[in-house]
Amino acid sequence: MKHPQIHAFSGQSGVIRLAGHRGARGILPENTLEGFEFAINSGVGLLELDVTATRDRVVVITHNHRLTRSMIRDRDGNWLQGEEPKVSGLTYAELQQYDAGGLDSNSAYGQRFPDQAFLSGVRIPRLSELLKLLQQPKHQNVHLLLEVKSDPDLLADTAARQALAEAVVADVRAADMQLRTVLHSFDWNLLADCQRLAPEMPASFLTQLPENAADVGEDSSKEVNPVAGCSVLDLPARVAAANGQFWCPYYRDITADALALAKNLGLTTMVWTVNEPGDIEHMIDLGVDVICSDYPGRVQHLLLKRGLHWLPEAER
Amino acid sequence: MKHPQIHAFSGQSGVIRLAGHRGARGILPENTLEGFEFAINSGVGLLELDVTATRDRVVVITHNHRLTRSMIRDRDGNWLQGEEPKVSGLTYAELQQYDAGGLDSNSAYGQRFPDQAFLSGVRIPRLSELLKLLQQPKHQNVHLLLEVKSDPDLLADTAARQALAEAVVADVRAADMQLRTVLHSFDWNLLADCQRLAPEMPASFLTQLPENAADVGEDSSKEVNPVAGCSVLDLPARVAAANGQFWCPYYRDITADALALAKNLGLTTMVWTVNEPGDIEHMIDLGVDVICSDYPGRVQHLLLKRGLHWLPEAER
Repeated sequence: MKHPQIHAFSGQSGVIRLAGHRGARGILPENTLEGFEFAINSGVGLLELDVTATRDRVVVITHNHRLTRSMIRDRDGNWLQGEEPKVSGLTYAELQQYDAGGLDSNSAYGQRFPDQAFLSGVRIPRLSELLKLLQQPKHQNVHLLLEVKSDPDLLADTAARQALAEAVVADVRAADMQLRTVLHSFDWNLLADCQRLAPEMPASFLTQLPENAADVGEDSSKEVNPVAGCSVLDLPARVAAANGQFWCPYYRDITADALALAKNLGLTTMVWTVNEPGDIEHMIDLGVDVICSDYPGRVQHLLLKRGLHWLPEAER
Repeated sequence: MKHPQIHAFSGQSGVIRLAGHRGARGILPENTLEGFEFAINSGVGLLELDVTATRDRVVVITHNHRLTRSMIRDRDGNWLQGEEPKVSGLTYAELQQYDAGGLDSNSAYGQRFPDQAFLSGVRIPRLSELLKLLQQPKHQNVHLLLEVKSDPDLLADTAARQALAEAVVADVRAADMQLRTVLHSFDWNLLADCQRLAPEMPASFLTQLPENAADVGEDSSKEVNPVAGCSVLDLPARVAAANGQFWCPYYRDITADALALAKNLGLTTMVWTVNEPGDIEHMIDLGVDVICSDYPGRVQHLLLKRGLHWLPEAER
């Protein structure tokens, strides 16, 4: 196989893989080392996370392009006031002044995750910190779906986009984690850059049809995702034509027919972000390769209930 | 104050305390070091846990008197078959052969905790292991509600009961954790033993009125708890008469009037095990001192939503 890491993401008889979304966003603050440690210590083999870069080109793990007041406190412990600063406008040292340890339970976003633990003194991590954690021998089977977030203000700026891809690839290579990493994006131009720069890492194409999009309180992918006007049945062929190895549709978009097309094209299919028990069961019924969830324990429970597992026997 | 540790359990203006039930049973396997670490790393200041002793008098952290097939696997990873062995009939070395890392999702008990992560290779811990973890300086503010489980087969055996109390007290004293520990039981005779043996630790009296009891799939307290025939309004005075410092009623039993009686008697009141959002909000409205929950993040969220906290400003 050209990309040995694909095995870790492939469903098989009795196995549907499980990815922890931003760590385990339902349980612990998203995209934090605390959340990633929880997920891997819970036996979750795949971590999904988001990266972007600071002004001084440090690759950091965070989802939105601006520090968001529903989830970021200032150095005095208060929710952000006024204009939300852009991550790309801050140095890494400046970013460390903020606390990413919890959600404002009165915000619309905070109300989506009513079980999330509230921590204090949690910093937005560097990608290199997570990679170092995963280099520990006990975590040698953990694989990464590393979502690169292109800046919506800089979509026309090819140099900026390439600089981000280069910085991400450099971090992954410095940690020698290429063969455990998949690069993932809604921005297919950015994925093309990644494929040129790092052919050793498979490219994972995220899609979300505009009619189903409804992620309250966080950055939308609409501006960068080239799927407007598509039917879900068009998407697998488009991913394959772009030399994608993974197709990652929003779970509300996928159908049995679309999944069958993806399988025929040799694509690995991961659905996101599947949190409600009925939706998780529906994805199990369809037989996707990977379910990405904010509640990994919930997916484990529902798989085990049917005698299924998220890891093959040899990897448990 | 005779017992300085009571402060850590006392509500105050703007503060309702939070105890993680068996660690954080909704999130991670109960009474495991993994669950306790999760709770304390989530900023939970109080841990509730259950102890009993093995045949060779090692104090271990587990709730039921028999290894229970809904939550214990054998050395081959299979759910227990046949008669469930008594913990007090096994040596500590024998107990280490079993895996306490997850729930059988097809059991009635397993279905109560559909988000609990499924781990493998998790051992039933010794009490001394948890005490050692809490001796780390970063955990110096964490306090324990240590529930001593009397063996229902040995209720008439005074010597057996005292031997258990002695073993527990010896472990706590060996770790010098007396001033961070409260001893807690449904068995008021056992609590009397504890008070004689260890007057430096407050006694916490658990109650559950038989008409409200409904804990599916786990050992019941009915046989040992001397409250049959009582009204909830009788309970605070009975606890105070037994020199109790804490009253811990089942949350469905407590009323505003009973809580007022407890406050007048100087008792600290903790309700258990409060998991549903509406029930948590009702306990906040009543103004109990401590809420004990399997979902500590959920309680944090609901407290923060009202501008309340589980720790006083100086302890955050």
